[in-house]
Amino acid sequence: MTGPASGLYSPFVKSFTKISDSAVRRLSHYLRFLDDVEAAGRRTVSSEELAARGGITSAQVRKDLSHFGSFGKRGTGYPVTLLRERIEEILGLGRTWRVALVGAGKLGAAVFHYGGFRRQGFDLVAVLDTDPAKIGRRWGDLAIEDVADLTRIVKKRHVELAVVTTPAASAQDVVDALAGAGVEAILNFAPRKLVVPPQVTLRDVNLVMELESLTFALTHRDR
Amino acid sequence: MTGPASGLYSPFVKSFTKISDSAVRRLSHYLRFLDDVEAAGRRTVSSEELAARGGITSAQVRKDLSHFGSFGKRGTGYPVTLLRERIEEILGLGRTWRVALVGAGKLGAAVFHYGGFRRQGFDLVAVLDTDPAKIGRRWGDLAIEDVADLTRIVKKRHVELAVVTTPAASAQDVVDALAGAGVEAILNFAPRKLVVPPQVTLRDVNLVMELESLTFALTHRDR
Repeated sequence: MTGPASGLYSPFVKSFTKISDSAVRRLSHYLRFLDDVEAAGRRTVSSEELAARGGITSAQVRKDLSHFGSFGKRGTGYPVTLLRERIEEILGLGRTWRVALVGAGKLGAAVFHYGGFRRQGFDLVAVLDTDPAKIGRRWGDLAIEDVADLTRIVKKRHVELAVVTTPAASAQDVVDALAGAGVEAILNFAPRKLVVPPQVTLRDVNLVMELESLTFALTHRDR
Repeated sequence: MTGPASGLYSPFVKSFTKISDSAVRRLSHYLRFLDDVEAAGRRTVSSEELAARGGITSAQVRKDLSHFGSFGKRGTGYPVTLLRERIEEILGLGRTWRVALVGAGKLGAAVFHYGGFRRQGFDLVAVLDTDPAKIGRRWGDLAIEDVADLTRIVKKRHVELAVVTTPAASAQDVVDALAGAGVEAILNFAPRKLVVPPQVTLRDVNLVMELESLTFALTHRDR
């Protein structure tokens, strides 16, 4: 338990420290679905509906949600708003996260303009690059700043999470600097396997690897 | 076994149809590493080196690679070029894949300009959008075309794989059209869970879900 919003968390949250990556992903899927049905004015959903959306079994849904309290009763469905709030709490979304974006190229621009980003409580507080032609240019209400100032900027603005969209060659140096400045969560788009110290959580999004999983599937389909 | 390059495949490849997603990802990681050491002029690598790069154990590496033939001998290391070629073959990279990009916004542009894409044998043969202001505009040697012509374009150019970078609201319609036109592998960046028929392999890259797995980790770290 950490961070300014700790007071919001119920004691049960502690038991979730060991849940698997795939369980966290299922929670994210449930959350997307709950957002949609809540926007549509619905007050309850069934485990079958949640399952259909996530491509999983309703038994798995009931098992996942059984950890969240006793409100999911068979036959009556889950209360949408309460379940949405509970999942947001588990995922750490009951607060705003301060994010730095490192790499102001085309991919950085795509991330910057991605709407879902801000809507979910991610507050972009810095955009950094090494290119003198880009430094000083405005993106929205931020000016692009020099990666050389990364440590100072991260500390001063209390950056908690970073998105790395640099070329592969510079990604490890950037991640070392981020970790050194105290950032403990990094989403990396650079196509290189990066090494981080144990206190840092790193997630990689690698377009080529996703494409390779598709060509593997295409190559080995049963025909 | 399918596709024009079937003749390149050894019989052993058949046994890989059931390997897990995570094993396919490890193969992708080994391949990145092998590319690097080959470029550096090295002729052999050890399982320990391959393991360090992928953040896994050397025992797992030896187990993965034991399926590939008898050339990985303890003490002598793996022959870099042969292993690289073998993994490329397994992943279906021994040939060129014809790709369509649907959605010519900022994210589409980032995908389009992503260097690794072409280098790995992915040949972008069409870029499509719905916006009349974008249709006809040139991206490299392609002109952006109307999504209304998707079926005709996919069939005429033998598109095998599609990358979807449309807004969430239109992604399901696009994916339905792609599947209807015969595309069997789709990489989806739109932040919506999509439904595809059983013959289609879908991979999702969802920025918000990746960020949520990070906020989950930040929220539940042991401090």
